[in-house]
Amino acid sequence: MGKSRQDRSGIAAVAGNGLLDRRALLGRGIMVAGAMGAGAGALNAAAAEPLAEAPWSLTPGDVTPAYGHPSRFEKAVVRTVDNPKNEPSGSRARTPHHLLRGTITPNGLHFTIMHSGIPDIDPAQHKLLIHGMVRQPLVFDLDALMRYRMVTRVGFMECGGNSAPLFSNEPIQADIQALHGLASCAEWAGVPLAALLDEAGVAPGAKWAVAEGADSVHLSRSVPLAKIMDDAMVALYQNGERIQPGQGYPMRLYLPGYEGNMNVKFLRRIQVTDRPGMTFYESKIYSDPLPDGRATQFYFVQEVKSFITSPSPGLALREPGVYEISGVAYSGTGRIAKVLVSADGGKSWAEAALDEPRLPKAFTRFGMAWRWDGGPAILQSRAWDEAGNAQPTREQFVAKRGQTSKPPSVRAFPGHHFNAVTSWAVDRKGEVHHAYA
Amino acid sequence: MGKSRQDRSGIAAVAGNGLLDRRALLGRGIMVAGAMGAGAGALNAAAAEPLAEAPWSLTPGDVTPAYGHPSRFEKAVVRTVDNPKNEPSGSRARTPHHLLRGTITPNGLHFTIMHSGIPDIDPAQHKLLIHGMVRQPLVFDLDALMRYRMVTRVGFMECGGNSAPLFSNEPIQADIQALHGLASCAEWAGVPLAALLDEAGVAPGAKWAVAEGADSVHLSRSVPLAKIMDDAMVALYQNGERIQPGQGYPMRLYLPGYEGNMNVKFLRRIQVTDRPGMTFYESKIYSDPLPDGRATQFYFVQEVKSFITSPSPGLALREPGVYEISGVAYSGTGRIAKVLVSADGGKSWAEAALDEPRLPKAFTRFGMAWRWDGGPAILQSRAWDEAGNAQPTREQFVAKRGQTSKPPSVRAFPGHHFNAVTSWAVDRKGEVHHAYA
Repeated sequence: MGKSRQDRSGIAAVAGNGLLDRRALLGRGIMVAGAMGAGAGALNAAAAEPLAEAPWSLTPGDVTPAYGHPSRFEKAVVRTVDNPKNEPSGSRARTPHHLLRGTITPNGLHFTIMHSGIPDIDPAQHKLLIHGMVRQPLVFDLDALMRYRMVTRVGFMECGGNSAPLFSNEPIQADIQALHGLASCAEWAGVPLAALLDEAGVAPGAKWAVAEGADSVHLSRSVPLAKIMDDAMVALYQNGERIQPGQGYPMRLYLPGYEGNMNVKFLRRIQVTDRPGMTFYESKIYSDPLPDGRATQFYFVQEVKSFITSPSPGLALREPGVYEISGVAYSGTGRIAKVLVSADGGKSWAEAALDEPRLPKAFTRFGMAWRWDGGPAILQSRAWDEAGNAQPTREQFVAKRGQTSKPPSVRAFPGHHFNAVTSWAVDRKGEVHHAYA
Repeated sequence: MGKSRQDRSGIAAVAGNGLLDRRALLGRGIMVAGAMGAGAGALNAAAAEPLAEAPWSLTPGDVTPAYGHPSRFEKAVVRTVDNPKNEPSGSRARTPHHLLRGTITPNGLHFTIMHSGIPDIDPAQHKLLIHGMVRQPLVFDLDALMRYRMVTRVGFMECGGNSAPLFSNEPIQADIQALHGLASCAEWAGVPLAALLDEAGVAPGAKWAVAEGADSVHLSRSVPLAKIMDDAMVALYQNGERIQPGQGYPMRLYLPGYEGNMNVKFLRRIQVTDRPGMTFYESKIYSDPLPDGRATQFYFVQEVKSFITSPSPGLALREPGVYEISGVAYSGTGRIAKVLVSADGGKSWAEAALDEPRLPKAFTRFGMAWRWDGGPAILQSRAWDEAGNAQPTREQFVAKRGQTSKPPSVRAFPGHHFNAVTSWAVDRKGEVHHAYA
């Protein structure tokens, strides 16, 4: 931590290059400073009465639609889809974190990855089979599942391949949507899978369950039975409404904190076994080579991570002055315990404010006041979870996991489970770029 | 509470007419019972291998859209809009609670009331003025607000007129969307209004703030300054994305727990004063006559309330057996402390399970296991908040607030702040109707 000292404006600084006391964030000092900024700040409105009438205040407004949608002025707030012509390969849709706030990702903007397009499933015909090492195989249709006790839980979902471009040995000049857009957070509601397995009756010696989807590639993953009996859910609802087709309609497996593809969409089968299925997706696609020649396998948990969403590439600072540094932190292990922020590339750090409630295995929004003096700055965030796990620095991460030469495109990079600190460099023009520091 | 005894199936009953021990909800007993139901329950699948392939599993699926949407099979999950031709009067869009789960209402389904249509506001031109009894009047545009420290908070919003049809002296045969659809819950993010007022400098003697919208009726309400300095927010984001036009785009006042219309949409002005503005909406529209000839005025807080969303009218029970009773509870005063459920019209009660986290001034989802024996039943829920406030029974509520003859339509009823217990009568066919009990 930097030692406490006075900022030019008289606000207590808590670390180098302009990080300000977070208790001052809601106080008067910063607000006055913000008001004194030129164009972007608040303006003296002593002569502002009576208020001018805008055109939309002079005529009746539009009809209320049955299903609401964002303003036409928000057309840029969409996912980037890397296979818009639906060619025979995978398709990734990324969340625009730089344009969002809070912790919930709206369903329309939740990231999704499809390996063979989105199936158009008739929920009245879809069934879930539980079989294998069970006393009594069972089939459930949607009406049957609707009669069970459901639970509600907010949680993040993250692709194991999120942030993969940052394995590169050179910084990647892309925005946060391209770099970290394969993570989102939602409220899920559904039936605890443990209840259904209890009903089927798990046989002695069973240790795994192989979950299979009804998409045409029948994506399958093996899940330790202990995880299923702990907190796995057959999710039917996302943010209140039925889960969308891109999220696995009419039902998906939800494994809080585990990598995205294990949360099998269009769930149609749970086979209880004494060994993992060694499916294509776990033995080839989602296993990673390590620098020492070994490979990761069954690397389930998305580990503690954070990134600054604002400022970030594409969100230029228009003038020197006070800004909020805002971002999200999350851990597949549990709650976020603290987030530190640096404005000088990691030389000094200060603790960010965390918005409550801090829920386990869910996004936590953090914030920090920062006075940009117009000079170069490197912004970083680093998170710790309640189990004491620290988000690794890039140096620590590369030492363990390696890096490679710059790939031909940010889409092409194969690495998984990147969770190191991200650095945003602010230049003298106020523009923000990805950097290594 | 009913005394504990054994249900026919051997599961502990906790109250009359089939309410079952909530700890048994995730246990094996109920699940087996559920599985033993006919058609609707789980079926023996011993011969279910290999799985049949549905048509959607045999071909590549659809393209991923940039902004996702619900399945085409969910077309019925929309708001009911009572002024679809946008005639020159108000318009109400109601949330379909019987088709939702969890606690978050998706933005497209959040209730909205417009008094003169939805204005199409260019956010680059919209401004917020703070003036009146302040040291320094100030104007903020969106860019200025974006630089302030924002906070995130989940909370319900409810129209003072929600549930107004239940003032009728006869039960109203309509579904929960018509009866309770003017309440929803979302995650809001924005700037604490206290910070902006601190910056403007509130003058001695100021006690109220009059908030005004940029819609063509310039809806205005007076808010006690103490509430504003406590937890009022200039909300910019709802469930992560910018608030939708029907919710006040580009910014609205958010007053956690206060009646909906005070959360002024399209917020363009805060005038600090020493007295309330006595605006049209607070002196005429949202004041209620009482049986003794007086009237309510400045009745801000939406008091403790709950309703059962399933079973509810339109969701018929197909056969006797175990069902989950599910609903939402909320209080403008704080957290929900407990919810009791009855299946015998209030003769006996049992405590429901509450999904965590129970956030203050937000929806809390409750659940209770219930064995329907095929006979008549009357389902009720009753909530208590952490301040000790009890949701009133209908008898208590009518004694205090009165009731009237049945209005010509459920849309026409003028009463406000109805929060008494709702009763759903289940008949021998399994159909559910509104009742008074």
